[in-house]
This record gives sequence, C-alpha cells and structure tokens, in this order.
Amino acid sequence: MVQAKTWVLIKHFDGFPKNSNFELKVEELPEPKDGGRKMSMSDSTFNEPSCTYILLFRISFVLEVLLEAVFLSVDPYMRPFSAFRMKEGDVMIGTQVAKVIQSKNPAFPVGSHVVSRSGWRTHSVSDGTDLVPVMPEWPQDVSLSLALGSIGMPGLTALYGIEEVLGLQKGETLLVNAAAGAVGSVVGQIAKIKGCKVVGSAGSDAKVAFLKELGFDEAFNYKTVDSLEEALKKASPEGYDCFFENVGGASSSVTLQQMKDFGRIAVCGTISTYNDTNPQTGPYPHFAMIVKQLKMEGFMQSRWEHKHPESIKRLMGWLKEGKLQFREHITKGFENMPAAFMGLLQGENIGKAVVAV
Amino acid sequence: MVQAKTWVLIKHFDGFPKNSNFELKVEELPEPKDGGRKMSMSDSTFNEPSCTYILLFRISFVLEVLLEAVFLSVDPYMRPFSAFRMKEGDVMIGTQVAKVIQSKNPAFPVGSHVVSRSGWRTHSVSDGTDLVPVMPEWPQDVSLSLALGSIGMPGLTALYGIEEVLGLQKGETLLVNAAAGAVGSVVGQIAKIKGCKVVGSAGSDAKVAFLKELGFDEAFNYKTVDSLEEALKKASPEGYDCFFENVGGASSSVTLQQMKDFGRIAVCGTISTYNDTNPQTGPYPHFAMIVKQLKMEGFMQSRWEHKHPESIKRLMGWLKEGKLQFREHITKGFENMPAAFMGLLQGENIGKAVVAV
Repeated sequence: MVQAKTWVLIKHFDGFPKNSNFELKVEELPEPKDGGRKMSMSDSTFNEPSCTYILLFRISFVLEVLLEAVFLSVDPYMRPFSAFRMKEGDVMIGTQVAKVIQSKNPAFPVGSHVVSRSGWRTHSVSDGTDLVPVMPEWPQDVSLSLALGSIGMPGLTALYGIEEVLGLQKGETLLVNAAAGAVGSVVGQIAKIKGCKVVGSAGSDAKVAFLKELGFDEAFNYKTVDSLEEALKKASPEGYDCFFENVGGASSSVTLQQMKDFGRIAVCGTISTYNDTNPQTGPYPHFAMIVKQLKMEGFMQSRWEHKHPESIKRLMGWLKEGKLQFREHITKGFENMPAAFMGLLQGENIGKAVVAV
Repeated sequence: MVQAKTWVLIKHFDGFPKNSNFELKVEELPEPKDGGRKMSMSDSTFNEPSCTYILLFRISFVLEVLLEAVFLSVDPYMRPFSAFRMKEGDVMIGTQVAKVIQSKNPAFPVGSHVVSRSGWRTHSVSDGTDLVPVMPEWPQDVSLSLALGSIGMPGLTALYGIEEVLGLQKGETLLVNAAAGAVGSVVGQIAKIKGCKVVGSAGSDAKVAFLKELGFDEAFNYKTVDSLEEALKKASPEGYDCFFENVGGASSSVTLQQMKDFGRIAVCGTISTYNDTNPQTGPYPHFAMIVKQLKMEGFMQSRWEHKHPESIKRLMGWLKEGKLQFREHITKGFENMPAAFMGLLQGENIGKAVVAV
C-alpha cells in the first residue's frame, strides 16, 4: 500500500488563487492490478427494420502501473480550466513526469519514465491509457523536466501555433507576448530558426535581457514603457505580420491596431484575464479586423496530437543543435506546488515553471 | 457645361447621422477631355555606383466620359469609413450605376452602363480608370440596380465570405445576422445552394417572414425573443459550424458561446457599433476562442477582385435559375440620399437599399 500526497482544490478560485483554495491530502493507493478484465460497452445500435439490438462490448485486460512523480508542471491554463473541468474536492489537474516504480504492464517497465496527466499527486496508479512514454531516445544529458517544457506541451504549443495556425513565413515579423514564459520563449526561437524578425514583450528587465540572449531582435518591458502602442511601433514601425497572443485583455486591443493588413493572430492564452472575478471588457475587435482583414484563431496543442512524436523529435533536434535554448524556474518540494502556481500567475518565472518533488 | 448635384459631408458624424451632417451642393463639371496627354512619374531610382538617376514617366492619353447616375448605393460601411477616408467638405463616398452620356473613350460608349465609385453625385467625369462596365450580357429583364446589390458588391461579399473565408461545407450549419439585409439575404441563399442548414437573425417580423420565403431553415426576430442565447440554442441545439457576422457588439459575445468546436466566423460588418461615439465594450473573445478553437477573420470583397467577373456570372446564373431571390428597398430622388442612408442604419430596409435618381 502506497500513500500518495495530493493537492486538492477545496474551494474554487475567486480572483487570484490563495493558499486557502488548496489542501494537501493523503490518499491510500491500491496495488497495481494485474490482468483483471475490464468490460466496457463501446457501442450499441438498434437496427429498426430487422428489430435487432446490437451491443458491442470491449473486453480489455487491465495492466496497471504505479507511478512516482519526479517533476510536476504548473501552467497558466490550470487557473481557468479549473472552473469548468473540476469540482471542489478534486485533485488539481496537471501533467507530470513520473517514474514507473511498479509495473504489471510490459509497455511501461519499472524505471522508465512517462508523462502522465494524473494531476498534482506524488503517486498514482494508471492502467496506461493516459500515459505517454518519454521519447525513447531521450538523451542522458537533457533533464527530463523538459518533457513538461520546451520538449513537451509548451514547446509543442509554440511549434503548432507557428506552423499550423500562423503559417509563419521567412522574412515576416512576429510579435509574441509573455515572451519569456514557457511557450513564448520557444515561439521566439522557432521564429528565428524560420528566418523571421522577432519582437518580444515581457514583464521585467531580467526577462528582457533573457530574450536578447535568446536572439530576439527587439524586446521591451511592457511594465516600464511609456506606452505599449509606441513600444510596438518603435520595435517594428512597419507593423506585424503575425502575433502569438499569450496575454489577452487590454493589450490585445492595442496590438490589433499594429498588425499589418492580412495579419494573423494565434490565440494561445489570455493570462491577464485568468484571475478576473468579473470579466474585463474592452472594445470589440471586429471593426479593426475588417479594415485590416485580420485572421485570429484560438488553439490548443492537443489538436495535432498525431504529430507529437515527430514534433518532439524536431524540438529535441533544435535543442541539441543549440538553436533552442531554455531556462527553467524550478521550485523544490511537492508541498510548494500552490506557491509555484501562484508565483507563475504573478510572472515570477523566467522560462518554464516546474516543481521538483 | 453640366451641373452635378452632390451630397457633401460638411461635418463628420458624431453618433447617429443627422441631416445637418450633409449639404446638397452643385458642381460645374468640365467637358470630358479628348486625348490630352497626362504624364505621371511612375518610378525613380538613384543608382549609387554609377551615379545615374533614373526617372520613369508614364505617358497616358486621357479619354474621358461624362456619367449620369441612375442608381446610387447606400451601404452601412459608409458610416465608419467616412471617419478615416473622408475629410469634411468631401463628397460622400459610394458606388453608383451610371449611364455614359458623353464619351471620348471607346471602352465606354454612349448609352452603356458602368459601376462607378464617384460617390453621391448625379453626374461625374471620369477617365475610365475607376469604372467597371456592367457585365456585358446583363439580361434586359434584370434591373441594373442589382449591380449594386445581389449581383454587385453585397452579393460578392456574401459569396467570398462563404467560399474564401468560411470554406462552408455541405451539411454544415450557418448562422447569419442582419439576415434580411443586402449581404445577409444572399449569404443565406448561397448557403442553401451549398446544402447547409441556415439560421437567420433579423430585426422585424416582416424580415423574418422574408427569410422564410427565401428558404432559411430557421429565423427569428432578435428584438422580440426573450434571450438571444435561447433563440440560438433553439434554432440549432447542436451549435453552429459557421457564423457570418454583420452586426458585432454585444450579440457577438453571445454567439461565440454557441459555436461548435473549430467553428469559423467571417467578420463582414459590425453595424451595431457604427454609430458609437464612445466605442462599446464587451468581454474579450480570446478565452472562448481558445477553448472552442475558433477561427475569426475580417474581410472585404475587394481582396478577390480578380475573381469578380467569374463570380458575377455565377451570381447572375443563380438569379436566372430562381435560386437567388432578392428584394430591394428603393428610395426615389437624389435629394433623399441622406434619408435613405439614415433609414438603412435604422434597419428600415428589407434587402438592398438603393436610391433611384
């Protein structure tokens, strides 16, 4: 019998998350099951002409594993998604890199690592259906934590946003905000790999310095510039072909006006609105979109899940070639997960925010 | 010497247009010129190594025509575009069907008809560069006024919005608002031709009855329904694949929530905001766009000008086959142009609003 520590959302967030929203609980986990049969109805149809009722059952063998969390992710999406994907009393949603410590499933041998969606837990039992093995040729000298960052969900988000949503072309100018974050920092670097001019907005001078290290052509601290409009104009007087939107809110209206005609906007996140109790309001974007003939698309990386294996290889390739640099903001100790999450929402991190157990 | 009556914007609109924004003026027109040479500099380059300054001049022969307006268009876009495409004292922008009454240009013989962008004028002199001849095989039994409506800019807007922006597919469900207007009524009918379910929103019971005549599957009066949200849900409980947006403002936020995942929105107009002195505000659309992975694109028909001749033939073909019905709201008398325009902005019209001289 293994005891799992879990962080439970005991009260839905209202405004900025507080310690009192979370409670550390201990769960007793059963032993991983071996070969038990699980029967589920996978389809049923009633065939009227012949009056036949067809039931299709799926019989599968349950081959469970016991996982121990090594790195846990804290991500901005957890704040808004908690409102409609969780009820009070649920373990916080989230992804982790975990080590298989017991296995009845040959696909996941003991000692191997997986990415699991088991949430904020130190241990979990899984039948394998929600697990993705960490890339088989994961290099020894690359931290597994990157499977939650540049070589994981945020990196894939950056890649698909650029290639599938924006269709960014060589020579174009791209703007990305929250540019020193887990997604933004990868966005800027992929855009550089593609031969583009990259402008980044971030919320501290240290973040701006980091963006310059990464090779951004222009970067500014949106908290200290006199005017966002002027900063955007100065960084690219001719406007922007593409905009990778991570922030939303009032800045989105300012940026819209700086797009070139036929500009494209990939809407990935809207962190400036996640802690609103009453939604912020602003001018409607429609008229500016008509006059400039802009395209704006919201997306989540899961849409291109079928491309993940190949995409992860590409990201790892760029990393090994030195074209994709990264920084991580690692918080130690599972007990500090709420603090890491709240710090992320306050913009404390440069690069990916991760908790090491 | 011909006298042209013109409607001049003497004071920029502030809020809803008023009679006092306009003034009827008389302009003396010169005789159309014959063969005079016009020289314009079309390019110049300074070639540094050889210190050669190259000037390229374009010499063209001015072959002018005198036009007499037959039908003049009033369109919602004139309200917002006046703010940045006009200065006080300019003749109101707009398109007209005009008859060539004097011609020094063999491309536009006397008696032929053209679509001209000469604005709110009874007469104008043109060198032909801004004129489009009315489709050569324009059927005798089809009013030339349709070159400003279903077989003109609004019809082309509907067609390109559906085909180029939305990529509407057979079997999908489309929502269009301002559905009884010049654009909306064509949108719904093209969507029916393409085998789609069509839901229309309009602002009077008479308009709703018109939409039913046109073959819309569902139509409602947004002014009398208890709740727009409920009306949209009732008309298509499974949501909407595509949304052709003519209205904007508060209704846009409600509609966003009724889109299906991966829904597409063609942003054509935002008439509900055109008379704002202070821009209306509403919740930012970004988060809803992320969760549903929506795509929204603003557009103007001029983007596909190269397709106009073929597109006009297709629209005319549908009209002759009875698949594209139309209604016009014709105001008689050039002196009534401001009244026709203000009536349009108040939603008085069913179908295309046109002024017959």
